[in-house]
Amino acid sequence: MNGGVGEASYANNSSVQKKVISMTKPITEAAITELIMCSSSSSSTAKSFCMAELGCSSGPNTLIVAMEFVKIVSQLCRKLGHDDKLPEFQIQLNDLPGNDFNSIFKSFAPSFHAQLLQEMGSAAAPYCFLSGVPGSFYGRLFAAKSLHFVHSSYSLMWLSKVPERVEMNKGNIYIASTSPANVINAYYEQFQRDFSTFLRCRSEEVVCGGKMVLTLLGRKSESASSKECCYIWELLALSLKEMVSQGVIEEEKLDSFNIPQYTPSLSEVKTEVEKEGSFTINCLEASEIAWAACGGSGFYSPEGDDGYDVAKCMRSVAEPLLVEHFGELVIDQLFENYRNILSDRMSKEDTKFINVTVSMTRKK
Amino acid sequence: MNGGVGEASYANNSSVQKKVISMTKPITEAAITELIMCSSSSSSTAKSFCMAELGCSSGPNTLIVAMEFVKIVSQLCRKLGHDDKLPEFQIQLNDLPGNDFNSIFKSFAPSFHAQLLQEMGSAAAPYCFLSGVPGSFYGRLFAAKSLHFVHSSYSLMWLSKVPERVEMNKGNIYIASTSPANVINAYYEQFQRDFSTFLRCRSEEVVCGGKMVLTLLGRKSESASSKECCYIWELLALSLKEMVSQGVIEEEKLDSFNIPQYTPSLSEVKTEVEKEGSFTINCLEASEIAWAACGGSGFYSPEGDDGYDVAKCMRSVAEPLLVEHFGELVIDQLFENYRNILSDRMSKEDTKFINVTVSMTRKK
Repeated sequence: MNGGVGEASYANNSSVQKKVISMTKPITEAAITELIMCSSSSSSTAKSFCMAELGCSSGPNTLIVAMEFVKIVSQLCRKLGHDDKLPEFQIQLNDLPGNDFNSIFKSFAPSFHAQLLQEMGSAAAPYCFLSGVPGSFYGRLFAAKSLHFVHSSYSLMWLSKVPERVEMNKGNIYIASTSPANVINAYYEQFQRDFSTFLRCRSEEVVCGGKMVLTLLGRKSESASSKECCYIWELLALSLKEMVSQGVIEEEKLDSFNIPQYTPSLSEVKTEVEKEGSFTINCLEASEIAWAACGGSGFYSPEGDDGYDVAKCMRSVAEPLLVEHFGELVIDQLFENYRNILSDRMSKEDTKFINVTVSMTRKK
Repeated sequence: MNGGVGEASYANNSSVQKKVISMTKPITEAAITELIMCSSSSSSTAKSFCMAELGCSSGPNTLIVAMEFVKIVSQLCRKLGHDDKLPEFQIQLNDLPGNDFNSIFKSFAPSFHAQLLQEMGSAAAPYCFLSGVPGSFYGRLFAAKSLHFVHSSYSLMWLSKVPERVEMNKGNIYIASTSPANVINAYYEQFQRDFSTFLRCRSEEVVCGGKMVLTLLGRKSESASSKECCYIWELLALSLKEMVSQGVIEEEKLDSFNIPQYTPSLSEVKTEVEKEGSFTINCLEASEIAWAACGGSGFYSPEGDDGYDVAKCMRSVAEPLLVEHFGELVIDQLFENYRNILSDRMSKEDTKFINVTVSMTRKK
């Protein structure tokens, strides 16, 4: 099931992802607040709150939302007069088994606890039990009715595998303007299968009234081959084609490579949620983030060269897939080409990613 | 708190540990069986069972008891007619943050799931949700009242740190026949503090009626400086002293080194459990295992050279501590000396480890 993203992790820990988490913060906050307000009005107030970060990766973004969750819930419990006893928190960090959980446990978890102590003080800082949960989120991962809040950012556009029947997508590596209709359908059907499986699994795991906030790469247009979601991959295909023409990569090698990803529209997400039936949508919206937001990642970027930052960012996303298919030797040149193509296009066009964010409540 | 065992894991994954798990299997089985029989007679039969392996390390022993737990509980649920719906299992694997959780997730977890499928069949194999929980068990690790069964083997003799006031233990690295009384007291008091902290933390986490089976290195004698628990370290001290006399190690370096371990007697364990008061002891017993059981670890062992196997085994236990204190350069020679000393003594004496196993129930 994890074939798609090989041994890597779902999300990358990029500066884009960090900005997207920040952009969607109001939606996340609203979901957490509603979770507590509704659970506190019922007789059985939970003393222990459990959240899952799906596709957590291993980097500075891994625990951003967990920190928000702990702070908001603690504040609300205090406001509501539950402060005779601090709530406890379980933070379940999920990613594929190839993710670097050791780094999370050795570096980011200690920083998380230290920050919590510093910001809340030792008397007010609650117990937070962190754990790592390896596995694909296209399968069950957690005990039934154990989760109060599920968050995922920039992971759910990854499919469980490359769709079957996409051999006809020659010269492309994802859906493109030149992709035949049956290729687009194969991608869409794989998304439908995967996303409905995801919802069915989570519906078992999330408590009634529990919340789920998901952000994934998507599109505003109803057309799956819209430039807003496909262009970034079309330019990578262009870079691969240059290397085919130079004889560095075999043409059939390029033709047999396809990215296991799908960037759905708002209505495609809505349709699957309604079809599965366990969740009510509270909020569904698209947002934009410029490709240039890839900058500020802490890597050295030659002044003004946005192409460098975007190529670097896309490399961290796509390298494991590309290495697996094309081998390691082509990678440096491939991304050098890609950087040049990106710099050129970004100087002439308004280039951006579209994010789809959906906030849901588990029905009673 | 984790200072004692540095960045390593609590348990080593040795063949001795494997044999001890096998020796204590009847006690483990009895505890699990009683857990299910008692919970099934109450109205609220748990559909989800949660166990914790404390000091799980990362090797073939990591999931042995978890496998037992899943099989026994599944069989009993079937026998008791609960097989309309399979129970679900949460397996929480704990060790210090420096443990290699990546290896567990990439290698041992997939084998665990494969074995479960093979032995139980895909229709009868229940959901098992594995997670990694980094941290010292001398602190809270899990949500309140979340654990049904806790297991730990060969980890709880490790103290949270080297006791204070053991400077007078010159020439020794653990309690020895020549240790002054105040050194022995300092060790014992550290054990009391640590073990009572451990019990207090677990008493919050284990459900009423939940079970805990712990095996640790200990002794039968009431004397803490008994040869049965100290001799193995006295011989390592002898090897260190040889290197002091050769000028390879400074004498004060040896004098300032002490192992953060305590090997309690049955009555010392009993006293702490009764003092803390949350658990009832069902079974408390000592067992013996020959030093020579270190063999069969899969390492090459020159024929009949038990010293080689024991030195190898002790090296895997003590190397992180020794490297931290003496540096890496002395290690090879130290264990070569130790091997020779061990071979000599083992050919002349009856050498064995004493295990203390205690099985407890969380009081209502």
